[in-house]
Amino acid sequence: MASYKAPLRDMQFVMHEVLEVGNTLATLPGYEDATPDVLDSVLEEAAKFSENVLFPLNRTGDEEGCHFDNGEVKTPKGFKEAYQQFIEGGWTGLDCDPQYGGQGLPKVVGFSISEMQCSANMAWAMYPGLSHGAYAAVNNHGTDEQKALYLPKLIDGTWSGTMCLTEPHCGTDLGLLRTKADPQADGSYLISGTKIFISAGEHDLTDNILHLVLARLPDAPKDVKGISLFIVPKFIPTAEGGVGARNKLACGSLEHKMGIKANATCVMNFDGAVGYLIGEPNKGMQCMFTMMNAARLGVGMQGLGLNEVSYQQALAYAKDRLQMRALAGPKFPDKPADPIIVHPDVRRMLLTMKAYAEGGRVFSTWLGLLLDIETQSQDEAEKQDASDLLALLIPVAKAFMTDNGFEATNLGLQVFGGHGYIREWGMEQFVRDARISQIYEGTNGIQALDLIGRKVLMDQATKLRKFTKIVHKFCEANGDDEQLKEFIEPVASLNKQILDITMQIGMQSMSNRDEAGAAAVDYLRLLGHLVYGYFWARMVKTAQAKADTGDAFYQAKVATARFYFAKLFPEHLSLTAKLKAGAKPLMALDSEHFALHL
Amino acid sequence: MASYKAPLRDMQFVMHEVLEVGNTLATLPGYEDATPDVLDSVLEEAAKFSENVLFPLNRTGDEEGCHFDNGEVKTPKGFKEAYQQFIEGGWTGLDCDPQYGGQGLPKVVGFSISEMQCSANMAWAMYPGLSHGAYAAVNNHGTDEQKALYLPKLIDGTWSGTMCLTEPHCGTDLGLLRTKADPQADGSYLISGTKIFISAGEHDLTDNILHLVLARLPDAPKDVKGISLFIVPKFIPTAEGGVGARNKLACGSLEHKMGIKANATCVMNFDGAVGYLIGEPNKGMQCMFTMMNAARLGVGMQGLGLNEVSYQQALAYAKDRLQMRALAGPKFPDKPADPIIVHPDVRRMLLTMKAYAEGGRVFSTWLGLLLDIETQSQDEAEKQDASDLLALLIPVAKAFMTDNGFEATNLGLQVFGGHGYIREWGMEQFVRDARISQIYEGTNGIQALDLIGRKVLMDQATKLRKFTKIVHKFCEANGDDEQLKEFIEPVASLNKQILDITMQIGMQSMSNRDEAGAAAVDYLRLLGHLVYGYFWARMVKTAQAKADTGDAFYQAKVATARFYFAKLFPEHLSLTAKLKAGAKPLMALDSEHFALHL
Repeated sequence: MASYKAPLRDMQFVMHEVLEVGNTLATLPGYEDATPDVLDSVLEEAAKFSENVLFPLNRTGDEEGCHFDNGEVKTPKGFKEAYQQFIEGGWTGLDCDPQYGGQGLPKVVGFSISEMQCSANMAWAMYPGLSHGAYAAVNNHGTDEQKALYLPKLIDGTWSGTMCLTEPHCGTDLGLLRTKADPQADGSYLISGTKIFISAGEHDLTDNILHLVLARLPDAPKDVKGISLFIVPKFIPTAEGGVGARNKLACGSLEHKMGIKANATCVMNFDGAVGYLIGEPNKGMQCMFTMMNAARLGVGMQGLGLNEVSYQQALAYAKDRLQMRALAGPKFPDKPADPIIVHPDVRRMLLTMKAYAEGGRVFSTWLGLLLDIETQSQDEAEKQDASDLLALLIPVAKAFMTDNGFEATNLGLQVFGGHGYIREWGMEQFVRDARISQIYEGTNGIQALDLIGRKVLMDQATKLRKFTKIVHKFCEANGDDEQLKEFIEPVASLNKQILDITMQIGMQSMSNRDEAGAAAVDYLRLLGHLVYGYFWARMVKTAQAKADTGDAFYQAKVATARFYFAKLFPEHLSLTAKLKAGAKPLMALDSEHFALHL
Repeated sequence: MASYKAPLRDMQFVMHEVLEVGNTLATLPGYEDATPDVLDSVLEEAAKFSENVLFPLNRTGDEEGCHFDNGEVKTPKGFKEAYQQFIEGGWTGLDCDPQYGGQGLPKVVGFSISEMQCSANMAWAMYPGLSHGAYAAVNNHGTDEQKALYLPKLIDGTWSGTMCLTEPHCGTDLGLLRTKADPQADGSYLISGTKIFISAGEHDLTDNILHLVLARLPDAPKDVKGISLFIVPKFIPTAEGGVGARNKLACGSLEHKMGIKANATCVMNFDGAVGYLIGEPNKGMQCMFTMMNAARLGVGMQGLGLNEVSYQQALAYAKDRLQMRALAGPKFPDKPADPIIVHPDVRRMLLTMKAYAEGGRVFSTWLGLLLDIETQSQDEAEKQDASDLLALLIPVAKAFMTDNGFEATNLGLQVFGGHGYIREWGMEQFVRDARISQIYEGTNGIQALDLIGRKVLMDQATKLRKFTKIVHKFCEANGDDEQLKEFIEPVASLNKQILDITMQIGMQSMSNRDEAGAAAVDYLRLLGHLVYGYFWARMVKTAQAKADTGDAFYQAKVATARFYFAKLFPEHLSLTAKLKAGAKPLMALDSEHFALHL
């Protein structure tokens, strides 16, 4: 049977041995108690919950899906009970403000838990995930009254939240959105419009659902500068914080999707529903942007989580399934055939999954730590650096980790051969679930445009240089180490090259802005490999230093790093060549000439 | 609404203008009547059937799936009627032997029709596709009596066929198979065993189903040399060729799959079912091998068909969907936003789909023609060349076309953004359907091993050199043409390089056979790009020669070729680097050390 085990050893290696998060957290006010021991015990408890409660509901949830009946939505069997156990364990408030009942733990540990939950049951994990986004919106932009009313409920998990952005005619281009907000005499607004693709828009897990809705005030500018953010509760809260009258909003239908079938993806109709402005009028997009880093990293964790769980199943199968003999001669002559893990190509698939998962794990943990620094540090320069690095690298985390996650789940399926295509084995569900992570929260193409446009070219690569300087320093400091040379050299070389390429794209796009758009996706992958290359080199440094412990964990780390540099990192060569080819080959064909072959 | 149009213009361009199949067919006995006009009118009729009958049943077939009830299987609504129409049109016997009622048309046109059917409804197309495989088996290896009994029924489509190879414990490694064949006094055999993943194993389309079953005679050697091929009919045929007694075999259950849900994938139980030997005892694998080229090319057509149909939908959506402005300024200032086809990254996705489809189309048509030459030519040298080129390139066609097909369907989904993930739009079905083509009929990893091991290294690259010589001649003949230079140079360069790389792998694998296994998948893709590069250069030559006709079709061809060389062909750079890294990075990690991160 399928099983999932949280990669605790690797998480601890990353946190304590590579990144030494304890040292950083100790300097951040509010995190004095978040010692390595505390983090470890939280991770261990979270692992048990993911392994024992969430994972067993993953396949059944996919088969059963959500049920829609006249506006009411039922989640699959067991989801409600699991959620109840989750809130009783206090997990919903883990990294939330203690003032409102949260536990005030660092975000970095929250993201590691998020990885586990996405491995175990991504569709389930989205319900509390969305609530956490709503918590962040109210916490960052709500008034004190709003915070006092909503945050305790979101933190204790009895109420949940959603993000209502997309409309039928606009997703990427929110400037086109039409949902209206009519101001009322009492300071509230009546919200009217239709929102689609609303994850967790309606369900039976909580007493109330708080919809964070983007809408337009009557006099608002027509574009993205005329969008405001509202909180629109399913039930209007009473003054005492209880559940009051039903609001004029309803789930019109559930979408039929490729995957994440156990998460209710709703069409939400707002028919003059009472809503309350969050933040300033016409500043809704800015409010959204402040939550975006955490939300996008959260989606990246979905790619990572599915990568890891698919790897674990594929590995178990590859050690169990007997088929053919090793090319170099039988490895298990007493068995009817060798386990398929002896075959180089099966190892290629497994190691690709492993190398992407472990690279993504250290990268995302580092970003989680930066999010903690960004919000908690008292040192303005450190704060700014964290903020700049996050702005630069969050699109990479979202897109690179989910693209690699999709590739990894497909490799996992492939290891199973024909059995991978059969639903009961569960491998194809990981593929279907992973596919959405490349699309929502800004498609990976949009992430790439955000990266190259807003994050890199707009400030003449200032943020990029903050990162390449970190890489450069590491390479300088360790380049003479004979044991590290083979890893440092390719990283140092790409680090230099990426600045040249960036400059070229910048120059070209001054005369033709399509150049940036044409370069975007390849450029993001190139930066992704620089990031992973850097972190693999750092992991090797840590592992080499402990080689004499005789612990095979460290040898495996070095062997996986060698695989990464030999078989995945070289993608940079074709990316570089494609970038050099520029925009012309993409723009030459007239739109009307795409279908002349018919 | 979704729609599909067969790419007739491109098929005709490929057949008549690039490959000039008419000239070749005219030299092959039996194909005297297969003039370009005849081929065109067959293609046109087939297009109508695919567009109007098959395509409308594709989405509904996926939603409904097949129904299993106590051994009986019902196909989705409309499938039976479509099949009836299909056999009434005589399509089942298109390229079959006229002696048994076939129309004797060339295989090359059969494969083009196959592309259309896979675009329109892959799950449906598999039913007659499997029958065609059974036809080939009996036709190649049956006795005259067997041919007289079975072929007319397979050709008129009233009976269908299957291939029963896989068992629960073996798919790739058929040497392990256990199904038994007990000889009876009357010359028949009693077949006992369980076969899984049997496509079209049971259904309601035909009066009888002929199972081609691999099984072991009592005294057979234990490995692949002890496997024989049997025909095991669902109903024992009467002497007059009617449907007689029910045989002791039954569909035990239907598999629940990721895709191709409208095709019945069956567990087949044979409980002493009467079967008849086809070909010689213990030569079952060889019998299978003779059909394998056509079958594997058939799977390649599935990748191509889904690539094309997904492209057509994505293109229509990209021209219709308004979202954001072109980076270089509004293209349609009167509309609320520009259609997304103005964005370079959307064009990258569309052009990738287009370039892979058109490259695959010319490559597969050329292979179809080689299959005709191989069977029909009277010139032994020509026959041998065709046979060698097919042996070499069929694994490339199967794996490269299906891998590209899967990538293309995913790009098509991505163009639709969130809507691509919703079932009603149909884009995610193409992804799910395409995924199986990378697995069955020999996984793409197995294709790669077959290529590098059996087809390239085993004969010291003799077959490979037959192909590189063709490429070399073309490059020599056209390299001085200023208009072709940009296309010829990269092809000529890779053509040379691939021989060097092959030699290196050959040398390395003499001391370590894992080197071939480690290189296999990257090597196949490298050869794939050489093949596509060569055919794109040939298409450009044809198109450039007609540039002065003013027909935009030819300009579009050249623009698509430029895209291919600028943005897809450069993959060879990273493939080459990965190949150079060899087997060591794959083999270094001990099997027991893959899970130390847990």
